[in-house]
Amino acid sequence: MTGRRSYLAGLLGQGIGPSLSPELHEREAARQGLRYTYKTVELAGSRLDRDALAGLLAHAVELGFDGLNVTHPVKQVMAAVVDELAPEAAAIGAVNTVLVDDGCTRGHNTDVTGFAAAVRAGLADAAVDDVLLLGAGGAGTAVAHALAGMGLQRLRVVDTDPERAQRLAASVRGHRGDIEVVTGTLADLPRLVAAASGLVNATPMGMAAHPGSPVDPQLLRPDLWVADIVYRPLLTDLVRHARSRGCRVLTGAGMAINQAADSFELITGRAADRSAMTRDFEELVADEVDEIAR
Amino acid sequence: MTGRRSYLAGLLGQGIGPSLSPELHEREAARQGLRYTYKTVELAGSRLDRDALAGLLAHAVELGFDGLNVTHPVKQVMAAVVDELAPEAAAIGAVNTVLVDDGCTRGHNTDVTGFAAAVRAGLADAAVDDVLLLGAGGAGTAVAHALAGMGLQRLRVVDTDPERAQRLAASVRGHRGDIEVVTGTLADLPRLVAAASGLVNATPMGMAAHPGSPVDPQLLRPDLWVADIVYRPLLTDLVRHARSRGCRVLTGAGMAINQAADSFELITGRAADRSAMTRDFEELVADEVDEIAR
Repeated sequence: MTGRRSYLAGLLGQGIGPSLSPELHEREAARQGLRYTYKTVELAGSRLDRDALAGLLAHAVELGFDGLNVTHPVKQVMAAVVDELAPEAAAIGAVNTVLVDDGCTRGHNTDVTGFAAAVRAGLADAAVDDVLLLGAGGAGTAVAHALAGMGLQRLRVVDTDPERAQRLAASVRGHRGDIEVVTGTLADLPRLVAAASGLVNATPMGMAAHPGSPVDPQLLRPDLWVADIVYRPLLTDLVRHARSRGCRVLTGAGMAINQAADSFELITGRAADRSAMTRDFEELVADEVDEIAR
Repeated sequence: MTGRRSYLAGLLGQGIGPSLSPELHEREAARQGLRYTYKTVELAGSRLDRDALAGLLAHAVELGFDGLNVTHPVKQVMAAVVDELAPEAAAIGAVNTVLVDDGCTRGHNTDVTGFAAAVRAGLADAAVDDVLLLGAGGAGTAVAHALAGMGLQRLRVVDTDPERAQRLAASVRGHRGDIEVVTGTLADLPRLVAAASGLVNATPMGMAAHPGSPVDPQLLRPDLWVADIVYRPLLTDLVRHARSRGCRVLTGAGMAINQAADSFELITGRAADRSAMTRDFEELVADEVDEIAR
């Protein structure tokens, strides 16, 4: 009777002040009539090691948190802090969602599941057998493992840091030995784009601080699908060029919304209304654009 | 824009599972259209010392708590943990509400302010010059200091532990040297009740586990006001007898609701609707009674 429960969630990371997650989670919860609070927890630079995070997480559990999102720069170290890891989080060694269940913590990665959901929803029936991935950092690794769960047969990886591309290749092969992984350099892009059925940008290029397109727009052809994970701005140079050249396009909103929806579903055990969350997201990003324009 | 804030509060203590505070706070917040989550944090027996509480509080601040209620058995130790103390909390050396303001913690005591508010609302114009207080524990101390701020001139204190009664007397004298404080034993009750203008029960007597009335009902006369701080059940033996004998009566609901309302106002900076909170409280307690009857 007094037991109508309320949910408590948050986001741990650095530079998270502008995160849309609080609004996305709390608006979805409000639609469902849930009491739900989502807090951003800006981590001090001195508090990023394993012991500090373990102490913080233990107290978060004691204080009643149902779940925590985790972002840069503690996704990897959090994987070493939680009691258990879900398969997708174990596969990439990174956690973006911690679930608390009866005092036990379990690390998930909804960047992986969220990107997969975004592709299924926004690029339904697109061939994901042969994909060119630009960027082999944390986001690129999540994208690669998401595709590996969706019928990927050949992955072509380009990163300005060849070692990072090799590490991602090893991670995908370790998870699914039957996938052929090819790494390349920026000079290989024309050939790699031509051979792939789809292209994913997982580099920061296209963000306000990194303007431009990660590939020469001339390389984009109408039967290539193009996905961007950058969502600020939503219409990156890559997205604009791909649209104008007739490509099927998935903006960064897809992954951003679906990782939030997946986290919400893990935390509450209830289905998220992804269409409504998409409208919220677009409204929030539009407000932001308005603010920048002012 | 993304900045519509949400509030996060909680209750630290032991045996707090049945607390009505989460419902009282969250329902009031919902009426005001606020996002507000209130968590109960059951403290392990090994985690009640100053260092453990200081660590928990520091992480609660980092995790975004706006305020915390504090109850048995850590009201006193919390007074030594917070950065600052409000005057009423400093006076009794006990904290039941911690406010977080820009990383700084300040201890308040809304048992004191809440009892005072309850008396003003429920016993308006009653003489509080000469009061008999039964029970000199933490609740009794809060009641005594509340009365000391409302025109008390003489306090008569009875506790089964004479030392505890003396400590309370010293605490009131230390705060307001002009108040005459008299301590007595159970044997003195007939004389003390006869001399007082009002009587407050701050002992556990009347609770389900401690049935009975703390004073012989024959001693109650119509011009004596009677306040009980026990609110489970709401209609204690003392309350029933006092009503049947024509006394003005304040049930334990008054203090319970007003301490919650005062905490809510401190945490949110917004006025609480005490009438609506009273209806919520009565509904919650009625449900509880129904459950027991089932």
